Amino acid sequence: MSNFDPDLNDPFVARAVVLRETFHTDAVARDKAGGRPTEQIRWLKESGLLSAGIPAVYGGGGASWLSLLRVVREFARTDGSLAHLFGYHHLPVHAVQARGTPAQQERWLRAAARAQWLWSNSGNALSKTSSAQRAPGNNGWVVTGFRPFSSGSHVADVIQLAWENALGQRLMGVVPADRAGIVIEDDWDGIGQRQTGSGTVTFNGVLVRDDELLGKPDDPLTPFASLTTLLQQSVLLNVFVGTAQGALDEGRAYTATQSRPWIHSGVERHVDDPWVQRKYGELAIRTLAATELADQAARSLDAIYGYGQALTLEQRGPVAIALATANLYAGETGLAVSNEIFEVMGARSATTANGFDRFWRNVRTHTLHNPAEYKKRTVGTWLLTGEFPSPAIYR
Amino acid sequence: MSNFDPDLNDPFVARAVVLRETFHTDAVARDKAGGRPTEQIRWLKESGLLSAGIPAVYGGGGASWLSLLRVVREFARTDGSLAHLFGYHHLPVHAVQARGTPAQQERWLRAAARAQWLWSNSGNALSKTSSAQRAPGNNGWVVTGFRPFSSGSHVADVIQLAWENALGQRLMGVVPADRAGIVIEDDWDGIGQRQTGSGTVTFNGVLVRDDELLGKPDDPLTPFASLTTLLQQSVLLNVFVGTAQGALDEGRAYTATQSRPWIHSGVERHVDDPWVQRKYGELAIRTLAATELADQAARSLDAIYGYGQALTLEQRGPVAIALATANLYAGETGLAVSNEIFEVMGARSATTANGFDRFWRNVRTHTLHNPAEYKKRTVGTWLLTGEFPSPAIYR
Amino acid sequence: MSNFDPDLNDPFVARAVVLRETFHTDAVARDKAGGRPTEQIRWLKESGLLSAGIPAVYGGGGASWLSLLRVVREFARTDGSLAHLFGYHHLPVHAVQARGTPAQQERWLRAAARAQWLWSNSGNALSKTSSAQRAPGNNGWVVTGFRPFSSGSHVADVIQLAWENALGQRLMGVVPADRAGIVIEDDWDGIGQRQTGSGTVTFNGVLVRDDELLGKPDDPLTPFASLTTLLQQSVLLNVFVGTAQGALDEGRAYTATQSRPWIHSGVERHVDDPWVQRKYGELAIRTLAATELADQAARSLDAIYGYGQALTLEQRGPVAIALATANLYAGETGLAVSNEIFEVMGARSATTANGFDRFWRNVRTHTLHNPAEYKKRTVGTWLLTGEFPSPAIYR
Amino acid sequence: MSNFDPDLNDPFVARAVVLRETFHTDAVARDKAGGRPTEQIRWLKESGLLSAGIPAVYGGGGASWLSLLRVVREFARTDGSLAHLFGYHHLPVHAVQARGTPAQQERWLRAAARAQWLWSNSGNALSKTSSAQRAPGNNGWVVTGFRPFSSGSHVADVIQLAWENALGQRLMGVVPADRAGIVIEDDWDGIGQRQTGSGTVTFNGVLVRDDELLGKPDDPLTPFASLTTLLQQSVLLNVFVGTAQGALDEGRAYTATQSRPWIHSGVERHVDDPWVQRKYGELAIRTLAATELADQAARSLDAIYGYGQALTLEQRGPVAIALATANLYAGETGLAVSNEIFEVMGARSATTANGFDRFWRNVRTHTLHNPAEYKKRTVGTWLLTGEFPSPAIYR
Repeated sequence: MSNFDPDLNDPFVARAVVLRETFHTDAVARDKAGGRPTEQIRWLKESGLLSAGIPAVYGGGGASWLSLLRVVREFARTDGSLAHLFGYHHLPVHAVQARGTPAQQERWLRAAARAQWLWSNSGNALSKTSSAQRAPGNNGWVVTGFRPFSSGSHVADVIQLAWENALGQRLMGVVPADRAGIVIEDDWDGIGQRQTGSGTVTFNGVLVRDDELLGKPDDPLTPFASLTTLLQQSVLLNVFVGTAQGALDEGRAYTATQSRPWIHSGVERHVDDPWVQRKYGELAIRTLAATELADQAARSLDAIYGYGQALTLEQRGPVAIALATANLYAGETGLAVSNEIFEVMGARSATTANGFDRFWRNVRTHTLHNPAEYKKRTVGTWLLTGEFPSPAIYR
Repeated sequence: MSNFDPDLNDPFVARAVVLRETFHTDAVARDKAGGRPTEQIRWLKESGLLSAGIPAVYGGGGASWLSLLRVVREFARTDGSLAHLFGYHHLPVHAVQARGTPAQQERWLRAAARAQWLWSNSGNALSKTSSAQRAPGNNGWVVTGFRPFSSGSHVADVIQLAWENALGQRLMGVVPADRAGIVIEDDWDGIGQRQTGSGTVTFNGVLVRDDELLGKPDDPLTPFASLTTLLQQSVLLNVFVGTAQGALDEGRAYTATQSRPWIHSGVERHVDDPWVQRKYGELAIRTLAATELADQAARSLDAIYGYGQALTLEQRGPVAIALATANLYAGETGLAVSNEIFEVMGARSATTANGFDRFWRNVRTHTLHNPAEYKKRTVGTWLLTGEFPSPAIYR
Repeated sequence: MSNFDPDLNDPFVARAVVLRETFHTDAVARDKAGGRPTEQIRWLKESGLLSAGIPAVYGGGGASWLSLLRVVREFARTDGSLAHLFGYHHLPVHAVQARGTPAQQERWLRAAARAQWLWSNSGNALSKTSSAQRAPGNNGWVVTGFRPFSSGSHVADVIQLAWENALGQRLMGVVPADRAGIVIEDDWDGIGQRQTGSGTVTFNGVLVRDDELLGKPDDPLTPFASLTTLLQQSVLLNVFVGTAQGALDEGRAYTATQSRPWIHSGVERHVDDPWVQRKYGELAIRTLAATELADQAARSLDAIYGYGQALTLEQRGPVAIALATANLYAGETGLAVSNEIFEVMGARSATTANGFDRFWRNVRTHTLHNPAEYKKRTVGTWLLTGEFPSPAIYR
Repeated sequence: MSNFDPDLNDPFVARAVVLRETFHTDAVARDKAGGRPTEQIRWLKESGLLSAGIPAVYGGGGASWLSLLRVVREFARTDGSLAHLFGYHHLPVHAVQARGTPAQQERWLRAAARAQWLWSNSGNALSKTSSAQRAPGNNGWVVTGFRPFSSGSHVADVIQLAWENALGQRLMGVVPADRAGIVIEDDWDGIGQRQTGSGTVTFNGVLVRDDELLGKPDDPLTPFASLTTLLQQSVLLNVFVGTAQGALDEGRAYTATQSRPWIHSGVERHVDDPWVQRKYGELAIRTLAATELADQAARSLDAIYGYGQALTLEQRGPVAIALATANLYAGETGLAVSNEIFEVMGARSATTANGFDRFWRNVRTHTLHNPAEYKKRTVGTWLLTGEFPSPAIYR
């Protein structure tokens, strides 16, 4: 049945529900505070969910993308930042699987599963603001510069960083977050997603050893490696869906217990006012549609992920369309629900103590990383010509 | 993968695709003419699809609701009237299963499967404009009066008719369409769904024999019998989804082959104008969402239909919500796509020869039978209180 | 006060109201029939309104654009075709003022005022499908070819036609509609605006005498002459505004007198159902906003029209923005109101006998001649950069 | 010409523009801080604008409502709180004119004009949480209890307070803000309109002398006195319009100077991306429409205000409709523009340092005080039946 209830038969989701309830207790306070959700990350590690996405062969949970993304969604019902951190954590884990050597995979993924590492990324593809020179001992590179939008670096165990070489080619490495020279600037100032730490990481001569390099600069972008952008879209869209669900959760609870009927309404309980019912119906319908599209897109991702390096562009194409569709729909739904929910809660609901505005600020912040205009054209072009988007940033 | 391509592995859908292509050849002309799609009904009989929904035990196809509703959708891509006639045909077939005696089921369903009967309905629940007296020989009732909105009666083999007794209770019977006294008024004048024959049937003393009575007036409305309204909603919503898909089908073909680039566009082909791509993206996303919700709702119906008279209100409830959700979404999508598609086809597309306006007229006509306002309240009430709609007309 | 009531203190509007009521009596029938509103044009001549826009110095009414466009709007409340014919009539009248010699102005405008000529246009700027050769007697040109979208040519007294010379320059002439060689093809097949006769005019060697030439091919496009496109936009937008008002007029009358309350509504009259009131409120608000913008744009046009050939681009610019704004808003409003009005009238309203669908078909047809996308960019560019659109087709 | 430029020929508006520029310098910081805009109120006094709305006969500016509301709008372009404080200031000033004795008018209005008093209101009509007893000396009342939503009380010179008597009738008085027993709780915690001080005022035995009573509890509500609710709606709607304009102001400046073109856009400046132009066009059109409706509504208010106690309900009715229309439209526009503007500024714009989210938070907060649903019904009922709203809270 289509509804908002999490599937508790999924053990990963079931654990996420427990965590979500805990996150909820101070979600509003942490949204105000920003900074680091240190304790919450500790609980996340204790839950074992950080290894859920690592293949079982390395000691991980071997969870499907559907499960992982539903965990993202579940967290986002109360805390978009933790949802985002958990989701983006899987991008470098994928990168290791898609670009790492067998030895690296064995080493890193096994260690990650065992120690419940939190992975993060400091290699924003639109900002070519870091570079490197060969290390004095010629055993690696010394990276200098910085990268913006480094979500999760402030709480991560491992950072996937990037820089460009003299030819403008992108290199990537994986290092412990406490590697000398890494400075987390703590300058994230977003209006939403306040604890994602999506600010700057400065590299003051960070050594990346040769065996920490992830792939080579002239490696072709395989269809499998190019799934990174689709995974990123998946994470964001499920943050949006979860946020819409969360706004509905808190909205209906408030409406049922706190809202007063309108003076001219003629009803004794606000929930009995027909227009309030209608409005909740409208918001529920949108959210249900977004949830369906998100589930369907996640399943389409699961259906191809197992092909690994054998994946073809023809197989990738329909998944890219399904994800673009779900992402666009989820973003619009998240904005609409988090904006309009106030109308059925009423004037007294809009306080910073209630913190309901965090839902809108969260979706508003992270829908901007990926202009809907261009994504819509991708879907339209496919419809008009059958052409799938060629893999590139954001598509 | 989520897209608009019919699932040709489903044999019922595969047959529908063939028929749809035939229907398409004169769909515009028949929309103008109105009246009876006589030849098309003959082809429908020849295809065997009219027995697809009859249980296999009676010689029918035993198709799932998902298959049957996808057939509805397929027809609606070019001809909303035939989609409607095919869909509504299943309402009296269900009524026989839900209210008929075992003997009636055996007699009628087996005959229907063998002869590919087309069923119709002349018992609009909002218009209590027919009544009956015991027949002179006391072997049945003689019905007089009329009923409006009798879709399909003009081409049917069998008509399920209704009247109220002196207590205001509703009685129903099943009679051959050529039973003496039945007058098809051919007065349907809708702006759309022009060949559905949804006009008046007059009863000039129509004999309904006692063994043609369907149930008794004081039979309680079982949850299983109450599925009729959900089936009706299912048919309409799939007409809307198919119409949206059809408007997109014809729109993109026109845009790709007929539309001229705009004078200030700087492109040589209209399909290369970015805003045209964006607009098709928007329409595609809505239509994909509507399709997902429709599929999901049909599956939820299939999941409970087999319970038969054992069905409970608790089982029915979530399906009612899923159907209301899918219906509302489909109606809005059908209207939006059929209205806006003109914008990306251009000024020369809006001719009666092209007949693209039939999509809008079709959805506009049949979305009115069921105010969205009340259906949205049903969904909203469920979200707010967990309460399912009590079975009643339209819910 | 802002409302929908015509300003009966304006003598032109007052006459239009009388005509509108007459047009209304068979507007639905004439929409079905298409063709020529011959009798209505006769009444229009008798009313004297065809000379309302001619300067008083030539014997015309000297009406303001605000008055003339309100007449357009008034007609469109029931008959978009007559509104369009009346409005477009003023384009060639303006062309004579902007491009004609003093002698031509004296000759044509005086005759037009005296005889209540109806002017039309057969020179669609996007279709360069006519050409000419010098006449045997060297006293003019002989035009061959055709022009599409020649609204009003089927009922006009005078036609402004156009062709391109060997250099691709546009020439224009003004001839009586019964000039030898002019063939009205009567092939207009639009889904709406059915009596505008917006089809093809064929030129089988039509003589345009030198003294019938309007301007010279190398005349620069003065700001005053370039007002033609703004006038065209003005006419269309007021057709849209009037159509929205007309849909509301007929909708509220039907709702108040014919609609039945919904079965689950608990009210005795449909107008007492709160959601019906809300919906009418929404439609009224949009229509009031469209009306305000249309009035304001018309006033801005009146404020500059008197400058004549002294008009500068700096003066024209803000008017172009005001008109683009009003046009876009009016188009969207016309579509929304004519589509959604059915929802508050109910299922029985959607018949061809009622003919309420003509409002949607009318707006849908004529909003396509001018893509909203490009016009919105014009307004956005102005907002972003302060830059006004350079005069060109459609802007 | 319709545009966003303030009319600098209006001396009140001209002064407001100067103040607005000053307010702008720390508007973001003050939004974060909340509390009291003490310095800004001082500047407001120095500008003389606080007496602009007082009739000239008492030494005030005698400004029209159009002027005063345009001042509100101008402030709201950068600071919704100051706009609100300035606007609401006029409600008690009106109350004195509508309910005060000639002596009170003379005394208070003259003093207010001379000393540039800021007036506020602590008598929220939905919360009957204060009461009074006769003062020991029988020269007045001693008020105890509290009132919520007392905007401006934290910075006011004069407070209009209210309580109910034993019969449930409402009494009102006007007292200096420093009257003993008045406690400003400073507990306003709104997500927006952060410096309006719209929190609780506690009355710890506040003496209201008999000559400070405003009207008598059994005074009938005259049409003129009932204008209070219309004035309140006027203030709010102009806050919304100004906020939309302000979001556009800051958005276009950011887009033109800070936004980067999108990676796949092919343009060098973000303002040259056609979809960015289109989006600004859409937002501009809505904002222009809102501005027109606001101006028109203000003019309709000016047209009747001079009738004073001679005002009839028939004269008030159309103004109530115009104001409801403008208010609804402005609220939706404010929300849409302040939400969507981020899409054309891009990901880096959404920081708390930029503070662009204050526009959304401001409109979101104060659109909730007055459910759009009920106001739309008011407009719809008028359209359907010609009936004007009977004066009451919020209509």
